[in-house]
Amino acid sequence: MDLRETLKAARTAARTLAALAGPERSALLEDFAAALSEPQTVRTVLAANATDLASAAEEERAGHLGPALIKRLSLDEKKLATTALGIVQLARMPELVGRTLTHRILDHGLILQRVSAPLGLLGVVFEARPDALVQIAGLAWKSGNAIVLKGGREAAHSNRALCAVAHRVLTGHGIDTRAMVLLEDRSEVASLLAQADLVEMLIARGSSELIRYVRGNTRIPVLAHADGICHVYLHASADPAMAAKILVDAKCSYPAACNAVETLLWDAGAGAALDACVEALTEHKVELRGCPETRKRHPRVLPASEADWDAEYGALILSLRQVPDLGAALDHIARHGSRHTDTIVAQDAEAAARFLAAVDSACVFHNASTRFSDGYRFGLGAEVGISTDKLHARGPVGVEGLLTYRWLLHGRGQCTTDYSPEGRHYIHRDLPIDR
Amino acid sequence: MDLRETLKAARTAARTLAALAGPERSALLEDFAAALSEPQTVRTVLAANATDLASAAEEERAGHLGPALIKRLSLDEKKLATTALGIVQLARMPELVGRTLTHRILDHGLILQRVSAPLGLLGVVFEARPDALVQIAGLAWKSGNAIVLKGGREAAHSNRALCAVAHRVLTGHGIDTRAMVLLEDRSEVASLLAQADLVEMLIARGSSELIRYVRGNTRIPVLAHADGICHVYLHASADPAMAAKILVDAKCSYPAACNAVETLLWDAGAGAALDACVEALTEHKVELRGCPETRKRHPRVLPASEADWDAEYGALILSLRQVPDLGAALDHIARHGSRHTDTIVAQDAEAAARFLAAVDSACVFHNASTRFSDGYRFGLGAEVGISTDKLHARGPVGVEGLLTYRWLLHGRGQCTTDYSPEGRHYIHRDLPIDR
Repeated sequence: MDLRETLKAARTAARTLAALAGPERSALLEDFAAALSEPQTVRTVLAANATDLASAAEEERAGHLGPALIKRLSLDEKKLATTALGIVQLARMPELVGRTLTHRILDHGLILQRVSAPLGLLGVVFEARPDALVQIAGLAWKSGNAIVLKGGREAAHSNRALCAVAHRVLTGHGIDTRAMVLLEDRSEVASLLAQADLVEMLIARGSSELIRYVRGNTRIPVLAHADGICHVYLHASADPAMAAKILVDAKCSYPAACNAVETLLWDAGAGAALDACVEALTEHKVELRGCPETRKRHPRVLPASEADWDAEYGALILSLRQVPDLGAALDHIARHGSRHTDTIVAQDAEAAARFLAAVDSACVFHNASTRFSDGYRFGLGAEVGISTDKLHARGPVGVEGLLTYRWLLHGRGQCTTDYSPEGRHYIHRDLPIDR
Repeated sequence: MDLRETLKAARTAARTLAALAGPERSALLEDFAAALSEPQTVRTVLAANATDLASAAEEERAGHLGPALIKRLSLDEKKLATTALGIVQLARMPELVGRTLTHRILDHGLILQRVSAPLGLLGVVFEARPDALVQIAGLAWKSGNAIVLKGGREAAHSNRALCAVAHRVLTGHGIDTRAMVLLEDRSEVASLLAQADLVEMLIARGSSELIRYVRGNTRIPVLAHADGICHVYLHASADPAMAAKILVDAKCSYPAACNAVETLLWDAGAGAALDACVEALTEHKVELRGCPETRKRHPRVLPASEADWDAEYGALILSLRQVPDLGAALDHIARHGSRHTDTIVAQDAEAAARFLAAVDSACVFHNASTRFSDGYRFGLGAEVGISTDKLHARGPVGVEGLLTYRWLLHGRGQCTTDYSPEGRHYIHRDLPIDR
């Protein structure tokens, strides 16, 4: 395959996807969901997945792969059905391409419109999770973008089978299958990263190592989360039972997730809430590493080193640190956080308001688990990832993060030299937008 | 000056700017405008500008500088007053920081808010135009961002005088003057480009050469326009008088502007419109370079080479090319355009709709001059530049392009494990937003 020629064809196919009318786009997605639910497809996909799983099991026995990867890799009928349901939900969301975002009279007969538009061709480098391929394809089609994909090698057979389903659906709608290009060779990733003139944006999902590699080796803008060092701060007014419940959810419900908590900061006045958390977390077999003040109160907590404040454990480990007050908590988060998700537990509304106003993270919560930081939970339909960058898209990114906009101006022959203090004046009045 | 220490102080000052309440922010801007209008200030600034102009005149005589630069460099009372008026307009625009962009019930007592937020510290590298410094400071303050600035060396004295005014106003509001850092040494630009952990975004204005240097030497996201190769396409249905008027405005009102037209595409059926354009442009002393078909009709047009279709003249030169139909015009623009601004002149509404839908540029116009592509004309208050990138901000960029957002979640102790097919369900209903 000549990658550049393929990507050029993908850009052309992107124009076809972009030009689909809303009902056509929905039909494409509904057909994809239906195809994924056909018994024959399910059998083929699960057989391919079984091949991947067999190789993975061998590698696991050899110690090259962990059980977490195998869990992410494995598909079953229920997981496939849930994935297909996600595609149906995307199909039934309102059309998001070509939406009017701004509608403004510049002058009589001179109307400015800002309309949403697809980006074009997106590159996606993702982990060994075949259901992610389906989700990404759905998000790309909903946003009118073509995609070039490279999944984890462990999922090669599953990805190929799922991609074949997507290609069948595209063909059924008269769309070039190069609207969705699956790369299989690792060396092609390096070539992909070099195509800054053809690829509008890269989405990188997976290990921090992979994300760093992608960011460090391309001039294409990358959408990814850097690290997920999330904090929970127990204010002196924290309710102990609520604090313990939130900590258990934030740490134990999925410790490998980027939105899991890594550090618990506790106010000197929040001793009772700390005690409740330590008890609950110990019950859930979380390894606790604390500052001297924490260990004074709970001697069984292990000593924390400086490195613990910057660690993304991704495991049942939590660091604990006493802070003299809210200001010190804010300083700790500004210094050690990764601008992902941080939570305050407090009954005091003023303290909560101060925390929400001051923490410069993508997601800042009051009395809620950090794990709510998620596209599905936020009601975005699905997510392509969580961005810790500040530009373009921040936090959980759904379809809207895959869109840009264009400015359209409808005139009657107007020229800029018509307008001057002595001549015509601009009106600049916004018009209502039909939704 | 230790640049890193200064930039760290600037980030701290950015937090103060971000935290200003709307009325405080407006007062800051009103005070800036007032300070710029004080007779003593005007005298000081104009004296500094005279020093710059004297050096520039010397360099012009030596052939190192062009008259266009001297025009951009020169300030007078009227230009200063207009600039101050722009700051007053910004002061009176609605507050844009902390605005609710999304307001959604996830569940009873679990409310999600997306609110606009400043980016933090912005770097700005700009041309020798002292009024730009004032405009950029105004936009930064309105958006709650700190800035580090490097202007063209020719404007050094003017910039220093204007920056002193801004610093006095900041001090009067109890804000660290390092909220606005002026770099004076060219070598500091290279150091600035290396501070990816401290600077959130770079704004590059000036020559294509400068922009390419900035883009090529930093990992900080850059907001800039690459090139401004704008097209006007005359459809067979174009009104000849309108076409000629638009072409004169688009080419002659400010040929050095990035939104000036560089190539005229004419439909084989638009001969009369072409004739009107050629006549009007010739009267305005525009050098015309055409394809063989154009020259067959207008033998006095010079021959165009392939390079002309990719040229940003920035001068009174225009290339002309006949295209068989609208599709061929779209192909030419896709191949040679710079995704800045393209216009169709047509009485046929269907052709216009097709053009507006298909051209993938930041600005796509029907029957209006390309020169409307401008923040002030679009009603954005002012512009920090025109972006030809697709991510974050596209086309003319005003205050909103200097903002990001944060997701705030207000809960009562909810955990993600409370929600499941068998447990609690999400509501996901958008609430009205008060404006």
